[in-house]
Amino acid sequence: MEKKLTVDVCLSPYMYPVHHKDDAIVVVIDILRATTAMCTAFHHGVEKMIPVATVEEATQYKQQGFMVGAERNGIALEGFDFGNSPFSYMTDKIKGKTIVISTTNGTQAIEAAKNAHQVVIGAFTNISALCDYLVSENRSILLLCSGWKNRFNWEDSVFAGAVTQRLLAEGLFKTSDAATAMLFLYEQSQKNQIKFIRNSSHAERLAAMGLKKDIKYCFQLDKTTVIPVLEGKYLVKLSSYF
Amino acid sequence: MEKKLTVDVCLSPYMYPVHHKDDAIVVVIDILRATTAMCTAFHHGVEKMIPVATVEEATQYKQQGFMVGAERNGIALEGFDFGNSPFSYMTDKIKGKTIVISTTNGTQAIEAAKNAHQVVIGAFTNISALCDYLVSENRSILLLCSGWKNRFNWEDSVFAGAVTQRLLAEGLFKTSDAATAMLFLYEQSQKNQIKFIRNSSHAERLAAMGLKKDIKYCFQLDKTTVIPVLEGKYLVKLSSYF
Repeated sequence: MEKKLTVDVCLSPYMYPVHHKDDAIVVVIDILRATTAMCTAFHHGVEKMIPVATVEEATQYKQQGFMVGAERNGIALEGFDFGNSPFSYMTDKIKGKTIVISTTNGTQAIEAAKNAHQVVIGAFTNISALCDYLVSENRSILLLCSGWKNRFNWEDSVFAGAVTQRLLAEGLFKTSDAATAMLFLYEQSQKNQIKFIRNSSHAERLAAMGLKKDIKYCFQLDKTTVIPVLEGKYLVKLSSYF
Repeated sequence: MEKKLTVDVCLSPYMYPVHHKDDAIVVVIDILRATTAMCTAFHHGVEKMIPVATVEEATQYKQQGFMVGAERNGIALEGFDFGNSPFSYMTDKIKGKTIVISTTNGTQAIEAAKNAHQVVIGAFTNISALCDYLVSENRSILLLCSGWKNRFNWEDSVFAGAVTQRLLAEGLFKTSDAATAMLFLYEQSQKNQIKFIRNSSHAERLAAMGLKKDIKYCFQLDKTTVIPVLEGKYLVKLSSYF
């Protein structure tokens, strides 16, 4: 069988217009820490999340009485309920609630991709469920790295390589040069996990803030089987599959 | 000594506005084949080259009597004097002349970076001279990959990794995540050159056009010590250093 489906990697939200593909599923990736935090929140029972790109929007929702997570440059903003740490979403108070989230990079990536065929949220913490879903859909896949302020970042790109590896194992997909390269990067990083984390400037940044516990959590596999999916302005738990 | 100079990699001309750094030297990279062809042309005595982004500009210059190279999608355009093959520039007829060149990706990258502190042309064929020059200048370096139609491509990115490796050996530079990642990619590719070329979709494209000889040439090291540099609208041979 000819491999007709593609797996492509967009290394920055800034590049999204170049990579956009009408019929592809877009996986938004912000390992440290937005998309990991989102998976955690849904695992802990949040009903809906509203990702917003700007602090202004986050503030408006806060004034309307929503619980809001707001983070910039690794720091939880004052006056909001959560930052970007997955641990802050491990609480019963979010159960059944709609909460709002705005982060440095991840929510911008969601905004960039919002008109795609489908937008789902990926992290190491939901990687197996995510890849099973992607394989089941029989569509081309665009892995969208949130990066750092529109630049390439290490951990999102390597995660894209990890997903590429799992998709290729199914034999359905052909890869773009970017997907092939990120696969190589992932394979290389597998050989030396410590050096791998040291190569992430954002992991270094978070470690300097005393957030090593967060970093460790964000690189753990399969803490959950939830896949957040964008429906209109809301992220909800993908229910068609699980 | 604190490493203050940075080596960064911009993986697509589309990303240039994100990576632009006022005081950096920009190295434009289009291994297959524009920047390799430019190095070849200067090695064979061309006096000046005028890189132009569009076929329309190339046509205007042709009408004014210039010799013009014009290529799109790997194919030399009809009615012009050269395509994008380095071999087409190995001729005495360019000696001392000003010629015009327009290609699918490389001349667009030059256009994107034209207002940088300095723009130089890099290829495997001038890598040692290039890196010696970059180290001598004591400035931050931005390696600008021409890519393929604004997407990441394999061979330009790996070349950026090769340059990064040589610059790091001097101990003067710190790397961005993108530079670190491309260094890893280069190290990985070194282990298996054949697989490396197979991973380049553009090398595959050119091979399918019967251009394996071009591919082989474009991956050879140090065929020349010339470094083309942008001065106004012209590429000229960098003379301050050699």
